[in-house]
Formats: sequence, C-alpha cells, structure tokens
Amino acid sequence: MFIPKIYRSEDESLMKKIIDENGFALLISNKEKLFATHSVFLPNKNENGFFLETHISKANFQAKVLQDGDEVLCDFLGSNCYISSSWYNHKNVSTWNYEAVQVTGKIKIMTDDELYDHLTRMTFKYEKPQKCPFFVENMGENFVKNEMKGAFGIKIIPTEISIANKLSQNRNAEDKKRIIENLQEIGDAGSLQIAEKMLNLK
Amino acid sequence: MFIPKIYRSEDESLMKKIIDENGFALLISNKEKLFATHSVFLPNKNENGFFLETHISKANFQAKVLQDGDEVLCDFLGSNCYISSSWYNHKNVSTWNYEAVQVTGKIKIMTDDELYDHLTRMTFKYEKPQKCPFFVENMGENFVKNEMKGAFGIKIIPTEISIANKLSQNRNAEDKKRIIENLQEIGDAGSLQIAEKMLNLK
Repeated sequence: MFIPKIYRSEDESLMKKIIDENGFALLISNKEKLFATHSVFLPNKNENGFFLETHISKANFQAKVLQDGDEVLCDFLGSNCYISSSWYNHKNVSTWNYEAVQVTGKIKIMTDDELYDHLTRMTFKYEKPQKCPFFVENMGENFVKNEMKGAFGIKIIPTEISIANKLSQNRNAEDKKRIIENLQEIGDAGSLQIAEKMLNLK
Repeated sequence: MFIPKIYRSEDESLMKKIIDENGFALLISNKEKLFATHSVFLPNKNENGFFLETHISKANFQAKVLQDGDEVLCDFLGSNCYISSSWYNHKNVSTWNYEAVQVTGKIKIMTDDELYDHLTRMTFKYEKPQKCPFFVENMGENFVKNEMKGAFGIKIIPTEISIANKLSQNRNAEDKKRIIENLQEIGDAGSLQIAEKMLNLK
C-alpha cells in the first residue's frame, strides 16, 4: 500500500485494533487470476509472532487453487470519510481520511483441528456480545465437523504489514479544528469516528 | 468474486448504486507484485457503456508500473454486518450479510483534458452536499493544472462485473423477521442498513 510518510504508522497496537474492529476484510490472490473474497479474519499469534486466520467456502475459486506457501494480500479498511477543502480558510483540494491495514503473507492451509479451533474462537468473538450467545460448544462436535466439510481454513503468515493512519496530519491546528467541527456536524458513522481519532491523535 | 447463485445480482441499477454510495474503494493490480490502493472512484459512461474512473498519486507504485491495457480489479464493499445464528430458532452457523461490486477491467491512462474533467465531476459530486461547496471552477485553472501534476488518472473499461447482494435469501420468513428485529435493536450503521435492505428486498 502506498502511504506517504506523514500518514504511515508503525504502531502494532493500532494495527491489531484496526484488524480486530474490521474483521470483515478482503482476501486477495493472484494464483491463475486476480481474485478477491470478502471474508472474516481473526488475528492470532504463536511463538513466531502475529498471523491472520480466515476461512472461505470450499466452492470458492481461491479454495481450489491456493496452496501452502502461496502469497495473498489481506486488506482491512477501517474508519474513513470525505474531507472537504471547503472547510479550510485557504484554497486546497479535498481528500479522504482513513485508517487501513494491509498484510501480505504466505498461506498455510489449516488442519481439521486448527479449523475447529479457529471456528471456536471466531464464533466466541462475535457471539459473546449477543443477548443469547450460541457458541461452538453449544453446537455439538458432530454438527461442527459436518459444517467444516464446506470450509477452507487458512493461516496467513505475514511477510509485510502496512498501516495507514491518514488523519489530516499535514494540516495546521486551525484547519484540524474546522475539519473536526464539520465532521461532527455531518454526524455519520465514518465522519464521527474520524473526528474522534483526529481528536485523540498524539 | 465467488457469489453463490442465491446471493448473485444482475441488477445494473444496484451495481451503480453500490459504486455511487461507496466510492472510496480498492484498486487492485498484479503488475510486478500484488498491490492495492484505497482510492475514490467515479462511475461514468460513453458510447461503449459503463466504465470507472479514479486517480491516484503519481508517487504510488501503481502509477509507475500500470500501462494502457493492464488488468485491475476494483472492489466496492457496501453495507455489511454480522448475522448471529443465535437469532434463529434452530441450530445453524453465523454469517455476514453484505453488498459488494467487483469490476475487473483494462486500464486506459487519462489525457490531461480527461483528468481535468474527471476532477471537475468528482469534486462536484462530493462538494455539492457541503454547506459552502468549493468546486473546481472556484479553484482557477492554473491551480488545478498544478495539482494535476501529482495525479495519475485512469479509466477502467470493464471486462467482468460481479454484484453480491447477500441478504439472508436462504432463510425462511420467520428467521428473516428475527434477523431484521435483532439488527434494528443493535442499531449500528451497518446493521440498520442491512435491515432496511432486507425489508426492501423483492
């Protein structure tokens, strides 16, 4: 991902937060052809460090062609919104503020045990906030193993991680204040999130 | 993009709506290496039909390697949210509902006149809703032409378009009702948008 230096982050905790909050992301590959799948990702770590996990349908083209060691690019787009140049007190061009993480890595196909464990942790993450959570433990092993027949689980071992945190760092204090005020007034989810992140930027 | 038939749409107006509402999308290429840029896209049409436009920084790797005729994949993700299996009255797995468009196409680098026109229309689209819109006409030709020196404008002529419209079409009326009620109760932007789209689904 191209990120001008002023917007580039090396903050590992920000990287994990963006991935954690935007788990429905994009799995991109170029085995045989350019192909991208919207899929739910889970961050994980082992003795070698951070890696990603996801699963897609076995009927998906990527599940048919991807093999251990193949390269993929995973794109996580977080909060983002339009920044109007009409908010500045001088002539300029409009832009878009956003946070995003891209992980390039090599895939490793999960074993059945790893896939079971992955589904257990992924279900826990998204079911815990529900009123009546329905965990993998509630489904019974036979049911889960039957569902697993249609799933292709992969781990993605990172070779390169890029973190974009574009929050008008190139603007002076007055412009930033105007941007934040305008975003708060617009009030949609993306604008409010970016306004808050701009306020909290160290 | 892999889309099971039940979630696949051929609706050109839906395709244009998703692109129009989610213009901040992803430009993916594999010239020399897998690379993806978050960029703002504008739909357009000429005598040969629909095509996309976008511009990126000339400092971006893609601007340095992409040439006329090279293939790119553009991904537009629209409304999306988690669908918990705890909302059904029977055992099942959770999923994600979403709408998305992917356009595979060949690029054509814009001439200076085309880029000027593209920036004019893009600025108009995003400035029109502002309190005090600042259009390209207000910037002056010299200013715009100077800014253009840093921009790489491309048209993407589609070779394949996929439209995903995954809205629990595989569920019965009772399940759909429960899903919509739960999404409305959760009440975040993605959940409310998906609930509304499920209600309006023909």
